[in-house]
Order: sequence, then structure tokens, then C-alpha cells
Amino acid sequence: MSATPADTTTTAANSAADSPAGHTAHGHGSPGYVDDKDALLKRLRRAEGQVRGIARMVEDDVYCIDILTQVSAATKALETVALALLDDHLSHCVAEATAEGGPVAEEKIREASAAIARLVRS
Amino acid sequence: MSATPADTTTTAANSAADSPAGHTAHGHGSPGYVDDKDALLKRLRRAEGQVRGIARMVEDDVYCIDILTQVSAATKALETVALALLDDHLSHCVAEATAEGGPVAEEKIREASAAIARLVRS
Amino acid sequence: MSATPADTTTTAANSAADSPAGHTAHGHGSPGYVDDKDALLKRLRRAEGQVRGIARMVEDDVYCIDILTQVSAATKALETVALALLDDHLSHCVAEATAEGGPVAEEKIREASAAIARLVRS
Amino acid sequence: MSATPADTTTTAANSAADSPAGHTAHGHGSPGYVDDKDALLKRLRRAEGQVRGIARMVEDDVYCIDILTQVSAATKALETVALALLDDHLSHCVAEATAEGGPVAEEKIREASAAIARLVRS
Repeated sequence: MSATPADTTTTAANSAADSPAGHTAHGHGSPGYVDDKDALLKRLRRAEGQVRGIARMVEDDVYCIDILTQVSAATKALETVALALLDDHLSHCVAEATAEGGPVAEEKIREASAAIARLVRS
Repeated sequence: MSATPADTTTTAANSAADSPAGHTAHGHGSPGYVDDKDALLKRLRRAEGQVRGIARMVEDDVYCIDILTQVSAATKALETVALALLDDHLSHCVAEATAEGGPVAEEKIREASAAIARLVRS
Repeated sequence: MSATPADTTTTAANSAADSPAGHTAHGHGSPGYVDDKDALLKRLRRAEGQVRGIARMVEDDVYCIDILTQVSAATKALETVALALLDDHLSHCVAEATAEGGPVAEEKIREASAAIARLVRS
Repeated sequence: MSATPADTTTTAANSAADSPAGHTAHGHGSPGYVDDKDALLKRLRRAEGQVRGIARMVEDDVYCIDILTQVSAATKALETVALALLDDHLSHCVAEATAEGGPVAEEKIREASAAIARLVRS
């Protein structure tokens, strides 16, 4: 996990993974996406810029259809972020929990399935 | 975001619906959403804030599932914006074009159907 | 909407189109998709076959992921049907209503927007 | 649809989970949904009936919007089937693979993520 200095410090507190703090917080160590953080943040900045751009189009009375095209693009960008987060979550949090098995594993699967349902329906 | 003076003037100028400006701009008068502009902008500001919040969650190593919940919320918010834009577009641009009829009306319907398809598939 | 002989017979009951019956029924003549009926029916038969195939896969204990691929395909097929219906509806029912204008036109737009919202959210 | 003798035997044979047959078939034992088979089949029969009903509505020239409502309902029904399959898949196939770990586990996660992406985008 070649974390950038920045990451290391950020993650430090938290990937004192097994710190009671970590546990009282969520009972999780560093999140599944920790290695893809920079890519995720780039994508999210871009999506934020797209949404800001849509507001500007509305202020400028741009034609409805042209705005709708941008809204679809921003929605797709967020979906891509969600799918990346979910893949990281399955590969790490869920995989680790199921490796241990037991009720924690079951809870993680339930949680992941609920998140997938929200995505599919949103 | 309550209409800034800037907005007011833009809207004013432009909801002189048939202003030559409007026409040279896009070959359209004021867009269908012109009366809902403030509501749309409020929604878009909120969506922009949601996306910024998601980036902050990633930076803070928040648990994947909690981030996914916010991504679904932001996606839903953008969908609501899209549906409002589309409704305004059908009620104004498309309705006016079909009232006139002819090839322009057909083009507007084709355009709207394509935008709906992009939404349904995004 | 020149109905082909074929259509006329199929539609007989109903496209006694301008029959009071037709009107009391829904206040509509023949539906917007009347000219695309055969294409729509072909698509729907195919979608029905896809769903039947998915049930067969479940009976045969086919691997989950292979079934999910078929479910996505069937869902996409239904979306295509919906988008075709919607395009026909806008091109005919809505266009005719808005050409006349008045409350009927407004109701048709409201109805179409609600149907689009159901599609986008389903 | 309560399991026909045929089903029982299929399931029996196959939920001899580690039967060579099962393995030669797909390199999988009994699928994750094996315990929910009857519920899944009931849902799929209903969805199949909904799609057949939509074709009948088209044949009868039912009003576009009323058909679209049924198409949205059938689409939602298929989504529910997909989410149930996915939950079963994560709870069984993926959980078992990740418990063993190694390349098989990674492949299962990749596969599941790809299936989720197809669902979210369909």
C-alpha cells in the first residue's frame, strides 16, 4: 500500500487499524479504497466540477437538452465512483470479514447487499 | 441560492422571451426552466455540496458503505434535477414546437426522446 | 395515423378509434404506438422468452453470475420497449394534445413526465 | 411454483455440492440461491406473466401510459430478482471463495463487481 506521506498521516490514526478508537468508531481499520484514494478523489473533483458547470449552464439559460446531457454525464461519473468503492469494499472489508466468518461476515454481506440495492434503484 | 442581481438581469433580458439575443444565442427563446431557475440552482448547489462532502469523506477514510449511501443520495438529487428540467422542457419548448408543428416539432421530440434514453440508461 | 389493414383488424374494437366507446374508455383514439405494434410485440415476445429462460436457468442450478447476465439483458430489453413507447407517445398523443393546447395538453405532459420519472427510477 | 420432482432431483444431484458433475459443469457446486429457488421461481413466473400481459395490452391498443406503468413494474420485478441472486451469491459463492482466499477469491470478487456494474447500468 504505497501511501503518499499525506495518506500515511491521514490513515495513521485510523489504520492504527486495531486501535480501540478505530473500533469504537466503526469497528473498521483503514477502508477498502485506501489504495485508490487519489484516483477516487480525482474522479470526485471532476464530478463536483461537472455539477458546478451544470449550475452555471442554468444561470446562463443554456438550452434544456444541453443541460440534460451534462446531468447524465455527472450521474454516470458518480456511478463510476460508486462501483469503484463497492469493488474495493468487496475486495477488502467483505473479503476479510468472510475470511474470519461468523456474524461480522454476515453483517458485512447484508450491508453490501443493501448498498447495492440503493445503487441499482437510484 | 436566491437570485443574485446578475441572475435577475439575465432572466429579465432573456424572458423577454423573443429577444433577438435569445434567438441568436441558440435559436431558442428563454429555456423551459426559466421560471424554476432558483429552485433548480438551489438543488444544484446542494448536489455540488453533496459531492464535495463525498470527497471529504474519502479524504477522512470514512467507511465505504457510509460513502456509498451519500453517492446514492447525490445521484438521486441529480436525477430529480434532470426530471424537473425534462418536465419544463416538455411543458414549454416541446409544447410550443408541437403547437406550431412541422419539422421543428419532430426534431424537438427526437431530441427529447434521446435525452430521456440517456437518463434512463445513466 | 394511417392504420395498415392489418392494424385496422387488430384495432377493430378500439379503433372504432373515434367511437364514443373509445372515448368513454380513455378519451383516446388509437394509441401512439399503433404503427410500431408489430415491432413492439416482437420485442415483448423476445423479452418474455428471456424471462422464461432465466427461470429455466434457476431450475437447472445455473451459476448465479450467468443468470445475472441474463437478467440484465432482459431488463435492458424492457427499457428499450419503454423508450419506444414513450417516443411514440410524445410524437403522437402529446404532440396532438399540445397542438390543441388547453388543459388536456397540460394533463398529457404531466402524465408523460410522471411516466418518465417512473422509468428513470425503476 | 413448489419444486417439481424434477427440481428436487436436480437440486439433490447438484447440492451434492462438491459432486464432480457440479465441478465439471461450471467449476461450481450448488449455486448460492439454491435455498431460495422456489421464491426466485415464483418471482420469475410473475415477471414472465407481467411481460406477457404487456404484450396483450399492446395488442389491445391500451393507452401508452398505462402500458409504461406495467413496463416499469416488470423492470422493478426483474431488479428484485437480480438483487436477491446477488445477495445469495455474495453470501455463499463469494463468502466461501474468500474464506479459502487466493486467486479464486479474487476472480469471484471481480466477477461479482462486473455483474453489479451491469445491473447498475442496465
